[in-house]
Amino acid sequence: MNPKTLHKISYGLFVICSKNNDRMNGQIANVLFQVTSQPPAVAVCINKQNLTHDYIAKSKTFTASILSEQTPMTFIGTFGFKSGRDIDKFADVKYKIGKTKAPIVLDYTVAYIEATVTDSLDVGTHTLFVAKVVDGDILTDDPSMTYEYYHKYKGGYSPKTAPTYSGMVDKEQKKKEEKKMDKYVCKVCGYVYDPEKGDPDNGVKPGTPFDKVPNDWVCPVCGAPKSEFEKE
Amino acid sequence: MNPKTLHKISYGLFVICSKNNDRMNGQIANVLFQVTSQPPAVAVCINKQNLTHDYIAKSKTFTASILSEQTPMTFIGTFGFKSGRDIDKFADVKYKIGKTKAPIVLDYTVAYIEATVTDSLDVGTHTLFVAKVVDGDILTDDPSMTYEYYHKYKGGYSPKTAPTYSGMVDKEQKKKEEKKMDKYVCKVCGYVYDPEKGDPDNGVKPGTPFDKVPNDWVCPVCGAPKSEFEKE
Repeated sequence: MNPKTLHKISYGLFVICSKNNDRMNGQIANVLFQVTSQPPAVAVCINKQNLTHDYIAKSKTFTASILSEQTPMTFIGTFGFKSGRDIDKFADVKYKIGKTKAPIVLDYTVAYIEATVTDSLDVGTHTLFVAKVVDGDILTDDPSMTYEYYHKYKGGYSPKTAPTYSGMVDKEQKKKEEKKMDKYVCKVCGYVYDPEKGDPDNGVKPGTPFDKVPNDWVCPVCGAPKSEFEKE
Repeated sequence: MNPKTLHKISYGLFVICSKNNDRMNGQIANVLFQVTSQPPAVAVCINKQNLTHDYIAKSKTFTASILSEQTPMTFIGTFGFKSGRDIDKFADVKYKIGKTKAPIVLDYTVAYIEATVTDSLDVGTHTLFVAKVVDGDILTDDPSMTYEYYHKYKGGYSPKTAPTYSGMVDKEQKKKEEKKMDKYVCKVCGYVYDPEKGDPDNGVKPGTPFDKVPNDWVCPVCGAPKSEFEKE
């Protein structure tokens, strides 16, 4: 089997939030989809290791914010590569409390859904939560971020806990690509600094070689310092 | 709730095939996704009314062909808007028999997956089949068709049996859009003939008003005659 086959499946990119009594958490997910239209119901696939998984299992509720193409890597880093066990992910983020009392992230959100879990299926490392949609709205007309767009234009990867984690396969492909300037990879999360693209979200212009990137620059995805990067 | 919220979720477009002893069938689906990477496993959401649903439930196997952006509407019409109870969907299609003995459609296929069902979940009108990936390969480097692309550039709709069926909501939006020439909608499947786009796959040039479309032209999706169209 060609291990890259599964990368050809299209996905969106979402922040999935839930709560546990008065605590709340959220995480990035790319596997959210509608399962029925009568009644409107969705399902989401969440890794059992994630704190959000515990919260959804206990509260039987979650919200999904459908992310815009405009979403910066720092935002994805906060929600996708850090744990709510270590930081308060909502500290610098605009959100509201929904009908189900779970938080709904509003930053970079094209549309959001609120849902209550009606069933679940253990699929090994992950759980599929099936849920009735109880509310939802569209906030902007921006295009929804696809996983393809995140991967291709933002240089993004999946964390090890994602259903679509691929790690080394992608790195091997990138090694084969023609290099004009050396790329550097974050040893913590796999983010690749590409000098051609720079990191404009954080003041590093396209065309900046890695050794000219300021020393206080950090990985836009996971926040690791520059010293955690190695030549790809 | 804004009923269009769920349209903001991104999907791909796939042909899902299965078999029942020596009979085979296939259908279009937009809800296929990876659920775990260790081991590689996928899930697919299929309407209980569909013949392919019966075949998957009985044979515990299915294949998924990930469609290219190049896929013509006639192909989607054959697999998505007609029933294998009425026609042989494989009559004019290139396919091969895979390791699981189920057919794998090769026309307009970017990549394919073969899978054996390990679990399933009844979600009402549909069943979620979870399956271990047993084989897969990439056939071309063409971009995968996203549901957004199908909807926006091809004028395509979901049949009533799709998880994402929306029908009138989309039609209302289209009515609000500025019309230069009248659009005509197929009463059978909901396909909209847009004079600006024409139907180049079937010899109708962009800019052709509906009354200038040849009388033997048929709906590129479901094959209905021109008389089954009405002004939108």
